[in-house]
Amino acid sequence: MSHGQEHLDLFESGLARRADFAYCGPLPQQVVRAITEDTLQTSAIHTYLELYARMYLDLAPQVALVAAEMADTDGNLYTGANTEETPLIVEAKTFRGSVVIARVNEIVNTADLPRVDIPGTWVDVVVEADRPYHLEALFTRDPAKITDTQVLMAMTAIRLYERHSVTSLNHGIGYNTEAIDLLLPTCGESLGLRGRICLDWAVNPHPTLIPAIETGWMRSVMPFGGEVGMNDYVNARPTVFPVGADGTLRSNRMAAQTVGLYGTDMFIGSTLQIDSLGNSSTVTAGRITGFGGALNLGNNPGGRRHSSPAWASMAESNDGRGRKLVVQIVQTQSSKGVPHFVESLDAVQVGREAGFDAAPVMIYGDDITHIVTEQGVAYLLKARDLEERKAAVSWAAGATPLALSRDRSRDEQMRRDGLFATPEDIGVNRGDASRKLLAAQTFDDLITWSDGLYIPPARRV
Amino acid sequence: MSHGQEHLDLFESGLARRADFAYCGPLPQQVVRAITEDTLQTSAIHTYLELYARMYLDLAPQVALVAAEMADTDGNLYTGANTEETPLIVEAKTFRGSVVIARVNEIVNTADLPRVDIPGTWVDVVVEADRPYHLEALFTRDPAKITDTQVLMAMTAIRLYERHSVTSLNHGIGYNTEAIDLLLPTCGESLGLRGRICLDWAVNPHPTLIPAIETGWMRSVMPFGGEVGMNDYVNARPTVFPVGADGTLRSNRMAAQTVGLYGTDMFIGSTLQIDSLGNSSTVTAGRITGFGGALNLGNNPGGRRHSSPAWASMAESNDGRGRKLVVQIVQTQSSKGVPHFVESLDAVQVGREAGFDAAPVMIYGDDITHIVTEQGVAYLLKARDLEERKAAVSWAAGATPLALSRDRSRDEQMRRDGLFATPEDIGVNRGDASRKLLAAQTFDDLITWSDGLYIPPARRV
Repeated sequence: MSHGQEHLDLFESGLARRADFAYCGPLPQQVVRAITEDTLQTSAIHTYLELYARMYLDLAPQVALVAAEMADTDGNLYTGANTEETPLIVEAKTFRGSVVIARVNEIVNTADLPRVDIPGTWVDVVVEADRPYHLEALFTRDPAKITDTQVLMAMTAIRLYERHSVTSLNHGIGYNTEAIDLLLPTCGESLGLRGRICLDWAVNPHPTLIPAIETGWMRSVMPFGGEVGMNDYVNARPTVFPVGADGTLRSNRMAAQTVGLYGTDMFIGSTLQIDSLGNSSTVTAGRITGFGGALNLGNNPGGRRHSSPAWASMAESNDGRGRKLVVQIVQTQSSKGVPHFVESLDAVQVGREAGFDAAPVMIYGDDITHIVTEQGVAYLLKARDLEERKAAVSWAAGATPLALSRDRSRDEQMRRDGLFATPEDIGVNRGDASRKLLAAQTFDDLITWSDGLYIPPARRV
Repeated sequence: MSHGQEHLDLFESGLARRADFAYCGPLPQQVVRAITEDTLQTSAIHTYLELYARMYLDLAPQVALVAAEMADTDGNLYTGANTEETPLIVEAKTFRGSVVIARVNEIVNTADLPRVDIPGTWVDVVVEADRPYHLEALFTRDPAKITDTQVLMAMTAIRLYERHSVTSLNHGIGYNTEAIDLLLPTCGESLGLRGRICLDWAVNPHPTLIPAIETGWMRSVMPFGGEVGMNDYVNARPTVFPVGADGTLRSNRMAAQTVGLYGTDMFIGSTLQIDSLGNSSTVTAGRITGFGGALNLGNNPGGRRHSSPAWASMAESNDGRGRKLVVQIVQTQSSKGVPHFVESLDAVQVGREAGFDAAPVMIYGDDITHIVTEQGVAYLLKARDLEERKAAVSWAAGATPLALSRDRSRDEQMRRDGLFATPEDIGVNRGDASRKLLAAQTFDDLITWSDGLYIPPARRV
């Protein structure tokens, strides 16, 4: 999916009718319109892994178009830091007889190709583009915009990491989780948690990780892709990131998604709406988004058989089966006062209008184990029935309308039963929550932490 | 894991202590002994995907040893049909600074390498072996050994495929599922099901698929690996299998596992023991097995968002969320009269003796949707509570001891409620079940179907 109108022209002219795709973030408005008006037919927005799976099986187009940084004269491709899913697209297609066309920024002699990311025998046509492909900084957030409330929620989340000894995890990208990144070297350090939590990550190399890396918190990162401005820094940290003998990052989105699904103990990310049952979505009225890998990372893999302290700590029975922590971290309402907790997700209506097979729910309430808001932590996993789950969600919803109908007379009992906990209950003092605690408060701070290796992009999301 | 004593020597001498591995089939007795005696420490047998995930993250050895058919003088590797997981092992390791050593059958000039499966820039050392690596036929079963009872169960299973319009699936390897393969061109054809079921497969290219392929049943196969004797046949069917421009199969176990998890609507496989709750395992007293990908394929991926008729037919609520069919197909007892249904799995005791974190359960009862035995089909997914699930399992257990304690007075009501169905209930006549219905009854028949391209291995499992 490109933002370009020329791609939509294919559908508007009737040359193409259906698109199956995975996506991260909001779709452009003209694509939303095309879906709603049925010019572009699609029945779901796939999570990455399921789309990849289908590309190897029942979704086999005849032509694959991919991009790379360089090719040599034999067609060997160097994708550089943004390897992402390009190798699997090429593999899935070339071995099904499809034509693989690669657009590259530059064609060089074999001796000048840094390394081979995709063998030339898999590629049919290489085209040198007249200008380099465009990359946006998707995973860069300005530390200056993190609020005291986000710091409070991040401090609460760190107590959750501590309680469950979470050593491997994924942070969805947003201010709430960036606040956690930036509190590890300060709050985390003063709690004595270095080496005990947050060692191994499936995550994009985003800049707010830099202070934690520089203070020795992180053992390894498996990246989905690269990030604008981070390359020099990442390449200089080959013990943490997968960097080739050529000295540059090799990412792999399929592998990183698999790591996030099967190799980590926690997913934590944000959302825009949570309904009374804990179902969440970033789809809101008039706005269709793809969820990236959140759906895949944010569920408990039934096939996992190895244990770990965090996994085992979530066991619901005595059969040795643990569970992944799946955490939504979200303020009860936006800075403009729009509630993030709602009776029913906008996604239900949007899905109906778009003709989807199901409402575009990001993570279902029964997959979520915890909700963290400025109220504290709601332990959805402890709910014995739907009524208790609703009560826990409602408690987390604070002063938003969803919370109004709750029978508050049971609150104290549920708190004693461990269905929710205030920050104070788990050792966080609200008065301490200040953005002064962040290890970096501006992009300049991040540049300093990186020893000048990090170069913030001119245009930021 | 190799069967060779020289590998165990590393543990017995104290040079190595711990092994994390995935495996398919029974472990050699000397390995079982080493695990039980704690000479070889391991805490679980991983399913493939979770081990692969960890190889990219927290399991990063310093040396990787892999095998390939050929290398060229630049170290580019041609793995041939058995690509399997070699590319990911090499990728995971080389980009973590590990040394990658490839043993190859032959070193050739670049011009003579059929294709590049793994780029030479990822490989550090190539060693030409003094003899070709040994391959066993793991997925080959003799059609002559399929019994009438297995045909009955297979006929029952096909009715299940029909009812749910199962177009994409995985068959675990065993006589029960091979019987299904061989009934498609006969029973399946007479039911008018060609083109309506069993189009897209995540499966190894095993020989009993040949008649279904030759009669136009199968649209595409994504293979985990190759199979001894199948190469010439597979290479001649490039519209069904992923075959490169060089004319040979490219398999990929990580991709095929992902296809089996996220891209298919059904897993069906056999087991050796099922307990009262429907938990199953092929681990039995004194016998530790790896489960291959059964655990990963046999669970419902929480992140799936695309729908299909089969998936949607399994919906438990009206929110558009479907479910994968996870089916165990097993006779109530072995040909020697050993019950396959037991009160408690041997795996519980074996796991304790081996020091595993959890009992080596293959598929948990709550992940299983159906059990097919010669009694008929038990619909575990329809059980509203554990008591109903137990009753459905007990009914499927036939005359084995597990079935004895069931309150049979409720059988008729449960049958009416759809918790179980006899073959006759779903249109299968027991009297018709005969191995004469199999499209191929011997290896010779398979050779004929393949037009002489299939070459049965001298040694068969």
